[in-house]
Amino acid sequence: MENKTVTMAHGAGGKQTSELIDQVFKAHFANSDLTADDAAVLVPPAGRMAVSTDGFIVSPAFFPGGNIGKLSICGTVNDLACMGAKPLYLTCAFVIEEGFPMEKLEEIAAAMEKTAKEAGVHIVSGDTKVAGKGQVDGVFIITTGMGEIQEGVTVGGELAKPGDAIIVTGDIGRHGCTILLEREDFGIDADVTSDCAPLWGTVKAVMDTTHNLHVIRDATRGGVGTVLYEIAGQSNVGIRLNAAAVPVQPEVKGVCGMLGLEPLYLACEGRLVIMAPKEEADAIVETLRKCPYSADAAIIGEVIADEPGRVVMETEIGTQALLPQPGGELLPRIC
Amino acid sequence: MENKTVTMAHGAGGKQTSELIDQVFKAHFANSDLTADDAAVLVPPAGRMAVSTDGFIVSPAFFPGGNIGKLSICGTVNDLACMGAKPLYLTCAFVIEEGFPMEKLEEIAAAMEKTAKEAGVHIVSGDTKVAGKGQVDGVFIITTGMGEIQEGVTVGGELAKPGDAIIVTGDIGRHGCTILLEREDFGIDADVTSDCAPLWGTVKAVMDTTHNLHVIRDATRGGVGTVLYEIAGQSNVGIRLNAAAVPVQPEVKGVCGMLGLEPLYLACEGRLVIMAPKEEADAIVETLRKCPYSADAAIIGEVIADEPGRVVMETEIGTQALLPQPGGELLPRIC
Repeated sequence: MENKTVTMAHGAGGKQTSELIDQVFKAHFANSDLTADDAAVLVPPAGRMAVSTDGFIVSPAFFPGGNIGKLSICGTVNDLACMGAKPLYLTCAFVIEEGFPMEKLEEIAAAMEKTAKEAGVHIVSGDTKVAGKGQVDGVFIITTGMGEIQEGVTVGGELAKPGDAIIVTGDIGRHGCTILLEREDFGIDADVTSDCAPLWGTVKAVMDTTHNLHVIRDATRGGVGTVLYEIAGQSNVGIRLNAAAVPVQPEVKGVCGMLGLEPLYLACEGRLVIMAPKEEADAIVETLRKCPYSADAAIIGEVIADEPGRVVMETEIGTQALLPQPGGELLPRIC
Repeated sequence: MENKTVTMAHGAGGKQTSELIDQVFKAHFANSDLTADDAAVLVPPAGRMAVSTDGFIVSPAFFPGGNIGKLSICGTVNDLACMGAKPLYLTCAFVIEEGFPMEKLEEIAAAMEKTAKEAGVHIVSGDTKVAGKGQVDGVFIITTGMGEIQEGVTVGGELAKPGDAIIVTGDIGRHGCTILLEREDFGIDADVTSDCAPLWGTVKAVMDTTHNLHVIRDATRGGVGTVLYEIAGQSNVGIRLNAAAVPVQPEVKGVCGMLGLEPLYLACEGRLVIMAPKEEADAIVETLRKCPYSADAAIIGEVIADEPGRVVMETEIGTQALLPQPGGELLPRIC
C-alpha cells in the first residue's frame, strides 16, 4: 500500500475500482448490511425515519483530533441524533483526486470504521469517483444517514419555550480553531485539538434521563452563536446568554483574542446545544457530565419571551449587549 | 439571478446560504417531505428498503440530452429500479466552485426537479458546500436514494441462469459518446445526444408483465460489455452475445469507427440489461417497446452454461470471438 497513489483507473469502474473497493473500503467497512451491488437491501426503521446528508470538503483533510473520515461520520450521525434518531445506516461517496496517497485514503477509511462502530451505525453502500489532478482538492466525502426516530421525544428548532434552560455539552469553538490554525500560518503555537465526536450516545443518555426536551442542535458551521440565532428565529423567542458560563478552553480563548475572533461563532463538531424546561436542566447536566464527550456541560442561558429573534448577552461585568448577528463568510470552512 | 455567481458566503452556513437554498433549491425541490432542518422526517418504506448513493462529477456539466442535475437523479433512481425498488426519497449534496454562475445552478436544479417528478421521487434533504476557485471543477452532485423493494421480484447479478434471454432496452453507448465528443476536440461533427433517462417506469412495466426476472442492471460506467462480464462472473455462467442484434445508432457507430472505440464499452445512462427465462423474452420486449425510453428494445444474446465468466461474441459473419475483457481507464468519465 505504501507509496501507492490513486489513479484514474481506480475510478473507471473496472478491475482497479474493484481492487480499491476490496482492499480499502470493504476491508474497513465490512458488516452484514454492506452491499457489493449498486444498492443495499435493508430492513427499514420502525416508526419514523430521519434522513440527513452532508458533504465534507475540509482542508486540510488531516488535523489534530481527527480527519475528514472521522468528521464525515460524526457530522451525519450527529445530525440524526439531533432529531432524536438512533443512527442505523450510512452511505458514503468519495471523490478522490488522482495522485492521492493510498496510505492516507486507508487512514481515512480506518477512522470512518472506528467512528461508525462507536456510533453503532452500519456503512451500507458507497461510491468512488476519481477526478483528474486539479479537478478536486484531495478528497471529498459525502455521507447520508438513516436513523430511527425514538418514540416519545419530539425536538426541533421551533420548539424552544420561554423558561427553557440552555445547555451546551462542552467547551466550544475547538474544531473551528483547530482548522484555522492548520490552514493559516499565523505563527501561533497553540495546543488545540478538534472536538469532533459522534454524539448519539450522548443524546441517548439525555433522552433516557428525560423526555421533556425541546431542542437538540449540534453547533457546527457558525458555532453556538449562529445556532442560538437560528433557534431564536424559528421559535420566535429571545435568548439570554450568560457569556461567563460558556465553557471555552484557555487556548481557544487565547487564539481568539489574538485574532479578534468570537469563540461563539467558531464551529464545534462534537458539541450540542440543548433546550429543555428549567426544572430538567440539573438532571440533564448531571447526566452529560458522566458521558465521554460532555464532561464540561454547562447551563449557559435561558429562553425568554422578550426580544424575539435576538440573542442578548450578559457580559462578565453585568452589562447587557446584543450578540452581533452572524452573516457573510464564516471563516474557516470547517467541514 | 442573471450575472450572479456563487460566492464563498453562499456556503458559509449564514444568511446567504439560506437565501441560496430558498431561491434555488427550495424553489425547485419543494414537496411535502423536504426538510429545512438538518434531517428529514419520513415514513419508512414498507417491506425491504433499497439504498444507493452515487457521485456525479461529469465534465462538462451540460451536454446534449441533459446536464449533471438530470444525470444525478437518473443515476440513483436507476440504481434503485435495478433492485426492483420504487424510488421514494432522494437526498442531494452539492459541492459548488466559487464563481459558478447562479443561472447555471438554477438550470441544474430545474432539471433535477423535472426528472425527480417524472421518477415520482421526493427530494427530502440537501447540503451545500462552496469550495474555493480551483478546489473543485464547477459543480459536483451526490445523490442518495431510498426505495421500496416490490414484493415478489428478486433480481441480482448472481441470478442469471443458462437459458436466459439477454435483453437490452435500447441503442447503446450514446451517453459515453456524447460526453467524449463534448470533452475532446476530435473535429467530428456528429448528432449524438445522451440517452440519460429515469427508468423506474420502464422497470415497473416489465415487472407488471412478469415476475419471472433474474437480472436487471443499468449499463452505466463501462457500458453493456462491462455489465455482461460482471454478471458472467457473479453468476458463473457464460454469455453468448449476438453482436449484430445490439442496437447502435449509426452516428454512434460512425464515431466509434473513426476513434477505434467499442460501443459495447461506452456508457449508457438510460439503458438496462435484463436477463429472464427465454419464454418470457418476447412479452418483455413487447412491453418495453411501448415504454418511452425503450422503443428499440432487443434480444441480444443468451446465457449459457459453457465458458463460465466469459462473453462470447458471434460476429456478423458468423465467427465466434471472445469479447475483450474490460479494464484500465475507461474513457471518458461519464458521470
